[in-house]
Amino acid sequence: MSRIPFSNVAERRELPPALAISTVIFSLRDDPRTGRKSLWMPLVRRTREPFRNQWALPGGPLGPRDSLIDAAAANLRDTTGLIPRYLEQLYAFGHPDRSPTRRVVSIVYWALVREDDAHDTDTEATSVLRDDPHVAWFRADDLAARQDLAFDHQEIIEYALWRLRNKVEYGSIAYRLLGERFTLAQVREVYEAVLDKELDPANFRRALRSATDIAETDEFLSGGKHRPPRLYRYTGSPTHRLESENIA
Amino acid sequence: MSRIPFSNVAERRELPPALAISTVIFSLRDDPRTGRKSLWMPLVRRTREPFRNQWALPGGPLGPRDSLIDAAAANLRDTTGLIPRYLEQLYAFGHPDRSPTRRVVSIVYWALVREDDAHDTDTEATSVLRDDPHVAWFRADDLAARQDLAFDHQEIIEYALWRLRNKVEYGSIAYRLLGERFTLAQVREVYEAVLDKELDPANFRRALRSATDIAETDEFLSGGKHRPPRLYRYTGSPTHRLESENIA
Repeated sequence: MSRIPFSNVAERRELPPALAISTVIFSLRDDPRTGRKSLWMPLVRRTREPFRNQWALPGGPLGPRDSLIDAAAANLRDTTGLIPRYLEQLYAFGHPDRSPTRRVVSIVYWALVREDDAHDTDTEATSVLRDDPHVAWFRADDLAARQDLAFDHQEIIEYALWRLRNKVEYGSIAYRLLGERFTLAQVREVYEAVLDKELDPANFRRALRSATDIAETDEFLSGGKHRPPRLYRYTGSPTHRLESENIA
Repeated sequence: MSRIPFSNVAERRELPPALAISTVIFSLRDDPRTGRKSLWMPLVRRTREPFRNQWALPGGPLGPRDSLIDAAAANLRDTTGLIPRYLEQLYAFGHPDRSPTRRVVSIVYWALVREDDAHDTDTEATSVLRDDPHVAWFRADDLAARQDLAFDHQEIIEYALWRLRNKVEYGSIAYRLLGERFTLAQVREVYEAVLDKELDPANFRRALRSATDIAETDEFLSGGKHRPPRLYRYTGSPTHRLESENIA
Protein backbone atom coordinates (compact mmCIF):
# COMPACT_ATOMS: atom_id res chain seq x y z
CA MET A 1 0.00 0.00 0.00
CA SER A 2 1.36 3.44 -0.84
CA ARG A 3 1.82 6.10 1.83
CA ILE A 4 -0.81 8.80 1.81
CA PRO A 5 0.98 12.01 0.79
CA PHE A 6 -0.20 14.36 3.53
CA SER A 7 2.66 16.42 4.89
CA ASN A 8 0.57 18.68 7.07
CA VAL A 9 -0.57 17.69 10.55
CA ALA A 10 -3.86 19.57 10.20
CA GLU A 11 -4.64 17.66 7.01
CA ARG A 12 -3.68 14.32 8.52
CA ARG A 13 -6.07 15.02 11.38
CA GLU A 14 -9.00 15.13 8.94
CA LEU A 15 -8.29 11.60 7.72
CA PRO A 16 -10.56 8.87 9.12
CA PRO A 17 -9.10 7.60 12.43
CA ALA A 18 -6.66 4.73 12.11
CA LEU A 19 -7.14 1.66 14.27
CA ALA A 20 -4.44 -0.05 16.35
CA ILE A 21 -4.44 -2.97 18.79
CA SER A 22 -2.21 -2.91 21.89
CA THR A 23 -1.83 -5.32 24.78
CA VAL A 24 -1.09 -4.96 28.49
CA ILE A 25 0.59 -8.12 29.81
CA PHE A 26 0.74 -8.82 33.53
CA SER A 27 2.83 -11.53 35.12
CA LEU A 28 4.06 -12.28 38.64
CA ARG A 29 7.80 -12.03 39.22
CA ASP A 30 10.00 -12.04 42.30
CA ASP A 31 10.64 -8.48 43.37
CA PRO A 32 14.08 -8.05 44.97
CA ARG A 33 13.01 -4.75 46.53
CA THR A 34 10.20 -6.22 48.63
CA GLY A 35 11.16 -9.89 48.86
CA ARG A 36 7.62 -10.68 47.63
CA LYS A 37 6.25 -11.27 44.19
CA SER A 38 4.92 -8.26 42.32
CA LEU A 39 3.21 -7.50 39.01
CA TRP A 40 5.50 -6.92 36.03
CA MET A 41 4.82 -6.21 32.38
CA PRO A 42 6.87 -6.10 29.17
CA LEU A 43 7.18 -2.98 27.02
CA VAL A 44 8.80 -2.52 23.63
CA ARG A 45 11.13 0.30 22.65
CA ARG A 46 9.75 2.15 19.62
CA THR A 47 11.98 2.16 16.56
CA ARG A 48 9.99 4.80 14.63
CA GLU A 49 8.49 8.22 15.11
CA PRO A 50 6.41 9.35 16.86
CA PHE A 51 8.00 8.66 20.27
CA ARG A 52 11.06 6.98 18.73
CA ASN A 53 13.21 5.22 21.39
CA GLN A 54 10.50 5.55 24.06
CA TRP A 55 8.91 2.54 25.75
CA ALA A 56 5.42 1.53 24.63
CA LEU A 57 2.88 -1.25 24.99
CA PRO A 58 3.30 -4.03 22.39
CA GLY A 59 0.96 -3.29 19.52
CA GLY A 60 0.41 -2.38 15.93
CA PRO A 61 -2.15 -1.72 13.25
CA LEU A 62 -5.10 -4.07 12.70
CA GLY A 63 -4.59 -6.17 9.56
CA PRO A 64 -7.53 -6.35 7.17
CA ARG A 65 -8.35 -10.01 7.90
CA ASP A 66 -7.39 -10.31 11.59
CA SER A 67 -10.00 -10.48 14.31
CA LEU A 68 -9.25 -8.06 17.13
CA ILE A 69 -8.08 -10.80 19.47
CA ASP A 70 -5.94 -12.48 16.80
CA ALA A 71 -4.22 -9.14 16.24
CA ALA A 72 -3.60 -8.80 19.98
CA ALA A 73 -2.16 -12.33 20.15
CA ALA A 74 0.03 -11.70 17.07
CA ASN A 75 1.42 -8.47 18.53
CA LEU A 76 2.38 -10.33 21.65
CA ARG A 77 3.99 -13.19 19.82
CA ASP A 78 5.95 -10.90 17.51
CA THR A 79 7.23 -8.58 20.23
CA THR A 80 7.75 -10.82 23.26
CA GLY A 81 7.66 -14.40 21.97
CA LEU A 82 4.82 -15.06 24.40
CA ILE A 83 1.74 -17.07 23.49
CA PRO A 84 -0.80 -16.02 26.14
CA ARG A 85 -3.41 -18.56 27.18
CA TYR A 86 -5.99 -15.90 27.82
CA LEU A 87 -6.63 -12.42 26.43
CA GLU A 88 -9.45 -10.12 27.39
CA GLN A 89 -10.52 -6.81 25.92
CA LEU A 90 -9.70 -3.97 28.31
CA TYR A 91 -10.88 -0.70 26.76
CA ALA A 92 -10.76 1.42 23.59
CA PHE A 93 -8.76 4.64 23.87
CA GLY A 94 -9.65 7.31 21.34
CA HIS A 95 -8.87 10.83 22.51
CA PRO A 96 -8.37 12.95 19.38
CA ASP A 97 -4.94 14.15 20.56
CA ARG A 98 -3.45 10.92 21.86
CA SER A 99 -1.14 10.66 18.87
CA PRO A 100 0.75 13.76 17.68
CA THR A 101 0.42 12.84 14.00
CA ARG A 102 -2.55 11.04 12.46
CA ARG A 103 -5.42 10.22 14.80
CA VAL A 104 -5.24 6.64 16.13
CA VAL A 105 -7.88 4.78 18.13
CA SER A 106 -6.34 1.89 20.10
CA ILE A 107 -8.36 -1.10 21.24
CA VAL A 108 -6.39 -2.48 24.18
CA TYR A 109 -6.39 -6.11 25.31
CA TRP A 110 -4.88 -7.43 28.49
CA ALA A 111 -3.29 -10.76 29.29
CA LEU A 112 -2.46 -12.44 32.57
CA VAL A 113 0.55 -14.67 31.96
CA ARG A 114 1.83 -17.46 34.18
CA GLU A 115 5.28 -16.90 35.60
CA ASP A 116 6.57 -20.10 33.99
CA ASP A 117 5.54 -18.84 30.54
CA ALA A 118 7.36 -15.54 30.98
CA HIS A 119 10.87 -16.84 31.47
CA ASP A 120 14.04 -15.56 29.79
CA THR A 121 12.98 -11.95 29.92
CA ASP A 122 15.05 -8.93 30.75
CA THR A 123 14.40 -5.91 32.89
CA GLU A 124 15.12 -2.46 31.55
CA ALA A 125 18.57 -2.52 33.19
CA THR A 126 19.62 -5.87 31.69
CA SER A 127 18.01 -5.39 28.27
CA VAL A 128 20.49 -2.71 27.24
CA LEU A 129 23.33 -5.25 27.62
CA ARG A 130 21.90 -7.39 24.84
CA ASP A 131 22.12 -6.99 21.09
CA ASP A 132 18.39 -6.34 20.80
CA PRO A 133 17.38 -4.13 23.71
CA HIS A 134 13.88 -3.58 22.38
CA VAL A 135 11.85 -5.53 24.92
CA ALA A 136 12.12 -5.22 28.69
CA TRP A 137 10.02 -6.05 31.75
CA PHE A 138 9.03 -3.35 34.20
CA ARG A 139 7.42 -3.37 37.61
CA ALA A 140 3.82 -2.31 36.83
CA ASP A 141 3.58 0.15 39.70
CA ASP A 142 6.73 1.93 38.54
CA LEU A 143 5.23 2.35 35.06
CA ALA A 144 2.02 3.87 36.38
CA ALA A 145 4.15 6.74 37.75
CA ARG A 146 6.43 7.30 34.73
CA GLN A 147 6.00 10.28 32.46
CA ASP A 148 8.22 9.15 29.58
CA LEU A 149 6.15 6.41 27.94
CA ALA A 150 4.91 6.75 24.35
CA PHE A 151 1.41 8.09 23.53
CA ASP A 152 -1.07 7.78 26.45
CA HIS A 153 0.34 4.39 27.43
CA GLN A 154 1.06 5.49 31.00
CA GLU A 155 -2.67 6.26 31.36
CA ILE A 156 -3.61 2.91 29.80
CA ILE A 157 -1.33 1.05 32.24
CA GLU A 158 -2.72 3.01 35.18
CA TYR A 159 -6.26 2.08 34.08
CA ALA A 160 -5.34 -1.61 33.63
CA LEU A 161 -3.95 -1.68 37.17
CA TRP A 162 -7.10 -0.01 38.47
CA ARG A 163 -9.28 -2.60 36.73
CA LEU A 164 -7.19 -5.46 38.06
CA ARG A 165 -7.50 -4.09 41.59
CA ASN A 166 -11.15 -3.08 41.51
CA LYS A 167 -13.18 -5.05 39.05
CA VAL A 168 -11.78 -8.52 38.75
CA GLU A 169 -12.58 -11.47 40.98
CA TYR A 170 -9.39 -12.52 42.71
CA GLY A 171 -10.19 -16.18 42.20
CA SER A 172 -10.20 -15.52 38.49
CA ILE A 173 -6.89 -13.63 38.65
CA ALA A 174 -5.31 -16.48 40.60
CA TYR A 175 -6.57 -18.97 38.03
CA ARG A 176 -5.17 -16.93 35.13
CA LEU A 177 -1.81 -16.25 36.75
CA LEU A 178 -1.29 -19.62 38.44
CA GLY A 179 -3.07 -22.28 36.40
CA GLU A 180 -5.85 -24.81 37.07
CA ARG A 181 -4.66 -25.81 40.56
CA PHE A 182 -3.06 -23.60 43.18
CA THR A 183 -2.35 -23.49 46.90
CA LEU A 184 -3.78 -20.86 49.24
CA ALA A 185 -0.25 -19.55 49.79
CA GLN A 186 0.09 -19.00 46.04
CA VAL A 187 -3.20 -17.12 45.98
CA ARG A 188 -1.91 -14.93 48.81
CA GLU A 189 1.17 -14.15 46.71
CA VAL A 190 -1.16 -13.04 43.91
CA TYR A 191 -3.15 -10.80 46.26
CA GLU A 192 0.04 -9.33 47.68
CA ALA A 193 1.36 -8.60 44.19
CA VAL A 194 -1.89 -7.08 42.94
CA LEU A 195 -2.50 -5.01 46.07
CA ASP A 196 1.23 -4.31 46.54
CA LYS A 197 1.22 -5.03 50.28
CA GLU A 198 2.01 -7.86 52.66
CA LEU A 199 -0.94 -9.84 54.08
CA ASP A 200 -1.18 -11.89 57.27
CA PRO A 201 -1.15 -15.59 56.22
CA ALA A 202 -3.58 -16.87 58.87
CA ASN A 203 -6.14 -14.10 58.38
CA PHE A 204 -5.84 -14.48 54.64
CA ARG A 205 -6.48 -18.22 54.72
CA ARG A 206 -9.59 -17.70 56.84
CA ALA A 207 -10.96 -15.00 54.53
CA LEU A 208 -10.18 -16.96 51.39
CA ARG A 209 -11.82 -20.17 52.61
CA SER A 210 -15.13 -18.33 52.84
CA ALA A 211 -14.76 -16.93 49.30
CA THR A 212 -17.30 -18.41 46.95
CA ASP A 213 -15.19 -18.64 43.83
CA ILE A 214 -12.43 -20.95 45.06
CA ALA A 215 -13.04 -24.61 46.04
CA GLU A 216 -10.70 -27.22 47.46
CA THR A 217 -9.71 -30.28 45.44
CA ASP A 218 -8.62 -33.73 46.64
CA GLU A 219 -5.11 -33.05 45.38
CA PHE A 220 -2.02 -31.83 47.20
CA LEU A 221 1.10 -30.06 46.01
CA SER A 222 3.92 -32.56 45.73
CA GLY A 223 7.63 -32.02 46.12
CA GLY A 224 7.88 -29.97 49.31
CA LYS A 225 9.72 -30.94 52.49
CA HIS A 226 6.77 -30.37 54.82
CA ARG A 227 3.21 -31.64 54.85
CA PRO A 228 2.05 -31.00 51.27
CA PRO A 229 -0.46 -28.14 50.99
CA ARG A 230 -3.89 -28.74 49.47
CA LEU A 231 -4.61 -27.58 45.93
CA TYR A 232 -7.63 -25.40 45.15
CA ARG A 233 -9.42 -24.54 41.91
CA TYR A 234 -11.40 -21.61 40.53
CA THR A 235 -15.18 -22.06 40.40
CA GLY A 236 -16.22 -18.48 39.66
CA SER A 237 -19.03 -17.18 37.54
CA PRO A 238 -18.85 -18.04 33.87
CA THR A 239 -17.50 -15.45 31.49
CA HIS A 240 -19.35 -14.57 28.32
CA ARG A 241 -18.02 -16.39 25.26
CA LEU A 242 -16.94 -13.02 23.84
CA GLU A 243 -14.68 -12.57 26.85
CA SER A 244 -13.30 -16.04 27.25
CA GLU A 245 -11.64 -16.73 23.94
CA ASN A 246 -8.77 -19.06 24.55
CA ILE A 247 -5.79 -18.54 22.33
CA ALA A 248 -3.60 -21.55 22.80
CA MET B 1 -14.70 13.57 1.04
CA SER B 2 -15.12 11.64 -2.19
CA ARG B 3 -16.19 8.03 -2.20
CA ILE B 4 -13.38 5.58 -2.67
CA PRO B 5 -13.95 3.97 -6.08
CA PHE B 6 -13.69 0.30 -5.19
CA SER B 7 -16.46 -1.69 -6.79
CA ASN B 8 -15.19 -5.06 -5.77
CA VAL B 9 -15.89 -6.57 -2.34
CA ALA B 10 -12.55 -8.36 -2.21
CA GLU B 11 -10.72 -5.08 -2.84
CA ARG B 12 -12.77 -3.21 -0.23
CA ARG B 13 -11.83 -5.86 2.29
CA GLU B 14 -8.16 -4.96 1.91
CA LEU B 15 -8.79 -1.35 2.93
CA PRO B 16 -7.89 -0.42 6.50
CA PRO B 17 -10.85 -1.16 8.80
CA ALA B 18 -13.33 1.69 9.20
CA LEU B 19 -14.38 2.73 12.69
CA ALA B 20 -17.96 3.26 13.88
CA ILE B 21 -19.52 4.09 17.24
CA SER B 22 -22.87 2.56 18.25
CA THR B 23 -24.90 2.78 21.44
CA VAL B 24 -27.17 0.41 23.34
CA ILE B 25 -29.77 2.39 25.34
CA PHE B 26 -31.68 0.73 28.16
CA SER B 27 -34.67 2.26 29.90
CA LEU B 28 -37.46 0.95 32.12
CA ARG B 29 -40.99 1.02 30.67
CA ASP B 30 -44.29 -0.47 31.73
CA ASP B 31 -44.76 -3.79 30.02
CA PRO B 32 -48.44 -4.53 29.27
CA ARG B 33 -47.67 -8.20 28.79
CA THR B 34 -46.41 -8.77 32.34
CA GLY B 35 -47.93 -5.85 34.25
CA ARG B 36 -44.42 -5.07 35.51
CA LYS B 37 -41.73 -2.79 34.20
CA SER B 38 -39.24 -4.26 31.77
CA LEU B 39 -36.13 -3.18 29.88
CA TRP B 40 -36.68 -1.46 26.53
CA MET B 41 -34.33 0.06 23.98
CA PRO B 42 -34.63 2.22 20.87
CA LEU B 43 -33.45 1.11 17.45
CA VAL B 44 -33.26 3.06 14.19
CA ARG B 45 -34.39 1.81 10.81
CA ARG B 46 -31.52 1.95 8.30
CA THR B 47 -32.10 4.13 5.26
CA ARG B 48 -29.05 2.89 3.32
CA GLU B 49 -27.41 -0.32 2.25
CA PRO B 50 -26.20 -2.61 3.67
CA PHE B 51 -29.22 -3.86 5.62
CA ARG B 52 -31.50 -1.09 4.24
CA ASN B 53 -34.87 -0.95 6.09
CA GLN B 54 -33.64 -3.25 8.88
CA TRP B 55 -33.51 -2.16 12.50
CA ALA B 56 -30.10 -1.27 13.95
CA LEU B 57 -28.48 0.27 17.01
CA PRO B 58 -28.12 4.06 16.76
CA GLY B 59 -24.63 4.81 15.48
CA GLY B 60 -22.40 6.13 12.80
CA PRO B 61 -18.81 6.80 11.78
CA LEU B 62 -16.36 8.49 14.15
CA GLY B 63 -15.74 12.10 13.11
CA PRO B 64 -12.11 13.20 12.97
CA ARG B 65 -12.34 15.49 16.02
CA ASP B 66 -14.90 13.67 18.22
CA SER B 67 -13.85 11.76 21.29
CA LEU B 68 -15.39 8.28 21.37
CA ILE B 69 -17.91 9.22 24.04
CA ASP B 70 -18.86 12.49 22.30
CA ALA B 71 -19.56 10.51 19.16
CA ALA B 72 -21.76 8.10 21.14
CA ALA B 73 -23.67 11.00 22.71
CA ALA B 74 -24.10 12.71 19.33
CA ASN B 75 -25.45 9.54 17.73
CA LEU B 76 -28.01 9.29 20.49
CA ARG B 77 -29.05 12.88 20.26
CA ASP B 78 -29.36 12.78 16.47
CA THR B 79 -31.34 9.58 16.30
CA THR B 80 -33.52 9.61 19.39
CA GLY B 81 -33.43 13.17 20.73
CA LEU B 82 -32.13 11.77 24.03
CA ILE B 83 -29.33 13.38 26.01
CA PRO B 84 -28.14 10.58 28.26
CA ARG B 85 -26.74 11.48 31.65
CA TYR B 86 -24.34 8.59 31.65
CA LEU B 87 -22.60 6.59 28.95
CA GLU B 88 -20.19 3.74 29.47
CA GLN B 89 -18.05 1.85 27.00
CA LEU B 90 -19.40 -1.67 26.50
CA TYR B 91 -17.11 -3.49 24.06
CA ALA B 92 -15.45 -3.25 20.64
CA PHE B 93 -16.82 -5.62 17.99
CA GLY B 94 -14.47 -6.34 15.12
CA HIS B 95 -15.10 -9.67 13.44
CA PRO B 96 -13.78 -9.38 9.86
CA ASP B 97 -17.13 -10.48 8.37
CA ARG B 98 -19.56 -8.48 10.51
CA SER B 99 -20.26 -6.08 7.62
CA PRO B 100 -20.89 -7.50 4.14
CA THR B 101 -19.08 -4.62 2.43
CA ARG B 102 -16.05 -2.79 3.81
CA ARG B 103 -14.74 -4.02 7.13
CA VAL B 104 -16.07 -1.99 10.08
CA VAL B 105 -14.95 -2.15 13.72
CA SER B 106 -17.67 -0.82 16.05
CA ILE B 107 -16.90 0.51 19.51
CA VAL B 108 -20.18 0.16 21.39
CA TYR B 109 -21.28 2.34 24.32
CA TRP B 110 -24.26 1.74 26.55
CA ALA B 111 -26.55 4.13 28.32
CA LEU B 112 -29.03 3.64 31.15
CA VAL B 113 -31.75 6.24 30.69
CA ARG B 114 -34.33 7.33 33.27
CA GLU B 115 -37.90 6.59 32.32
CA ASP B 116 -38.83 10.27 32.58
CA ASP B 117 -36.19 11.18 30.00
CA ALA B 118 -37.42 8.63 27.50
CA HIS B 119 -40.95 9.92 27.01
CA ASP B 120 -42.74 10.46 23.68
CA THR B 121 -41.29 7.38 22.10
CA ASP B 122 -43.00 4.84 19.92
CA THR B 123 -42.93 1.10 19.82
CA GLU B 124 -42.37 -0.70 16.53
CA ALA B 125 -46.16 -1.06 16.07
CA THR B 126 -46.95 2.63 16.61
CA SER B 127 -43.92 4.05 14.80
CA VAL B 128 -45.19 2.96 11.38
CA LEU B 129 -48.25 5.17 11.86
CA ARG B 130 -46.10 8.31 11.97
CA ASP B 131 -44.50 10.26 9.17
CA ASP B 132 -41.02 9.32 10.29
CA PRO B 133 -41.08 5.69 11.33
CA HIS B 134 -37.33 5.48 11.69
CA VAL B 135 -36.99 5.15 15.47
CA ALA B 136 -38.90 2.69 17.66
CA TRP B 137 -38.58 1.18 21.13
CA PHE B 138 -38.38 -2.57 21.58
CA ARG B 139 -38.51 -4.87 24.58
CA ALA B 140 -34.83 -5.83 25.06
CA ASP B 141 -35.54 -9.52 25.59
CA ASP B 142 -37.48 -9.69 22.34
CA LEU B 143 -34.53 -8.19 20.45
CA ALA B 144 -32.06 -10.69 21.87
CA ALA B 145 -34.09 -13.42 20.09
CA ARG B 146 -34.63 -11.67 16.72
CA GLN B 147 -32.76 -12.74 13.61
CA ASP B 148 -33.59 -9.75 11.39
CA LEU B 149 -31.45 -6.97 12.89
CA ALA B 150 -28.68 -5.29 10.88
CA PHE B 151 -25.03 -6.43 11.11
CA ASP B 152 -24.24 -8.34 14.33
CA HIS B 153 -26.46 -6.05 16.38
CA GLN B 154 -28.52 -8.92 17.76
CA GLU B 155 -25.30 -10.36 19.21
CA ILE B 156 -24.31 -6.96 20.62
CA ILE B 157 -27.70 -6.58 22.33
CA GLU B 158 -27.50 -10.10 23.72
CA TYR B 159 -24.05 -9.31 25.14
CA ALA B 160 -25.23 -5.98 26.64
CA LEU B 161 -28.08 -7.80 28.42
CA TRP B 162 -25.64 -10.41 29.70
CA ARG B 163 -23.33 -7.71 31.07
CA LEU B 164 -26.23 -5.92 32.71
CA ARG B 165 -27.36 -9.15 34.39
CA ASN B 166 -23.96 -10.51 35.38
CA LYS B 167 -21.37 -7.82 35.86
CA VAL B 168 -23.02 -4.68 37.10
CA GLU B 169 -23.80 -3.81 40.69
CA TYR B 170 -27.55 -3.50 41.03
CA GLY B 171 -27.21 -0.45 43.23
CA SER B 172 -25.41 1.26 40.38
CA ILE B 173 -28.09 0.23 37.87
CA ALA B 174 -30.82 1.56 40.15
CA TYR B 175 -28.95 4.83 40.50
CA ARG B 176 -28.54 5.21 36.74
CA LEU B 177 -32.11 4.25 35.87
CA LEU B 178 -33.88 5.98 38.77
CA GLY B 179 -31.82 9.00 39.80
CA GLU B 180 -30.07 10.12 43.01
CA ARG B 181 -32.83 9.04 45.39
CA PHE B 182 -35.08 5.99 45.10
CA THR B 183 -37.36 3.81 47.20
CA LEU B 184 -36.73 0.11 47.82
CA ALA B 185 -39.88 -0.66 45.81
CA GLN B 186 -38.40 1.19 42.84
CA VAL B 187 -35.18 -0.80 43.17
CA ARG B 188 -37.26 -3.99 43.16
CA GLU B 189 -38.88 -2.86 39.91
CA VAL B 190 -35.39 -2.44 38.43
CA TYR B 191 -34.33 -5.92 39.55
CA GLU B 192 -37.56 -7.40 38.18
CA ALA B 193 -37.03 -5.68 34.83
CA VAL B 194 -33.36 -6.66 34.55
CA LEU B 195 -33.91 -10.26 35.67
CA ASP B 196 -37.28 -10.47 33.89
CA LYS B 197 -39.07 -12.14 36.80
CA GLU B 198 -41.31 -11.20 39.73
CA LEU B 199 -39.68 -10.98 43.17
CA ASP B 200 -41.22 -11.31 46.62
CA PRO B 201 -41.36 -7.77 48.12
CA ALA B 202 -40.62 -8.73 51.74
CA ASN B 203 -37.71 -11.04 50.92
CA PHE B 204 -36.36 -8.47 48.52
CA ARG B 205 -36.41 -5.68 51.10
CA ARG B 206 -34.58 -7.87 53.59
CA ALA B 207 -31.89 -8.83 51.06
CA LEU B 208 -31.48 -5.29 49.81
CA ARG B 209 -31.10 -3.76 53.26
CA SER B 210 -28.01 -5.91 53.81
CA ALA B 211 -26.51 -4.82 50.46
CA THR B 212 -23.46 -2.67 50.95
CA ASP B 213 -23.92 -0.30 48.04
CA ILE B 214 -27.29 1.26 49.01
CA ALA B 215 -27.77 3.45 52.10
CA GLU B 216 -30.89 5.05 53.56
CA THR B 217 -31.31 8.82 53.57
CA ASP B 218 -33.36 11.00 55.95
CA GLU B 219 -35.78 11.78 53.14
CA PHE B 220 -39.11 10.22 52.23
CA LEU B 221 -41.03 10.06 48.98
CA SER B 222 -43.78 12.65 49.01
CA GLY B 223 -47.16 12.60 47.31
CA GLY B 224 -48.49 9.12 48.05
CA LYS B 225 -51.66 8.24 49.92
CA HIS B 226 -50.04 5.97 52.47
CA ARG B 227 -47.11 6.36 54.85
CA PRO B 228 -44.40 7.81 52.60
CA PRO B 229 -41.61 5.33 51.84
CA ARG B 230 -38.02 6.13 52.71
CA LEU B 231 -35.60 7.22 50.00
CA TYR B 232 -32.24 5.49 49.53
CA ARG B 233 -29.08 6.45 47.68
CA TYR B 234 -26.26 4.65 45.91
CA THR B 235 -22.95 4.46 47.79
CA GLY B 236 -21.14 1.89 45.65
CA SER B 237 -17.52 1.68 44.73
CA PRO B 238 -16.17 4.58 42.71
CA THR B 239 -15.88 4.15 38.99
CA HIS B 240 -12.68 5.07 37.21
CA ARG B 241 -12.75 8.53 35.67
CA LEU B 242 -12.52 6.92 32.23
CA GLU B 243 -15.78 5.13 32.92
CA SER B 244 -17.72 7.82 34.64
CA GLU B 245 -17.80 10.63 32.13
CA ASN B 246 -20.99 12.52 32.62
CA ILE B 247 -22.49 13.96 29.49
CA ALA B 248 -25.15 16.38 30.65
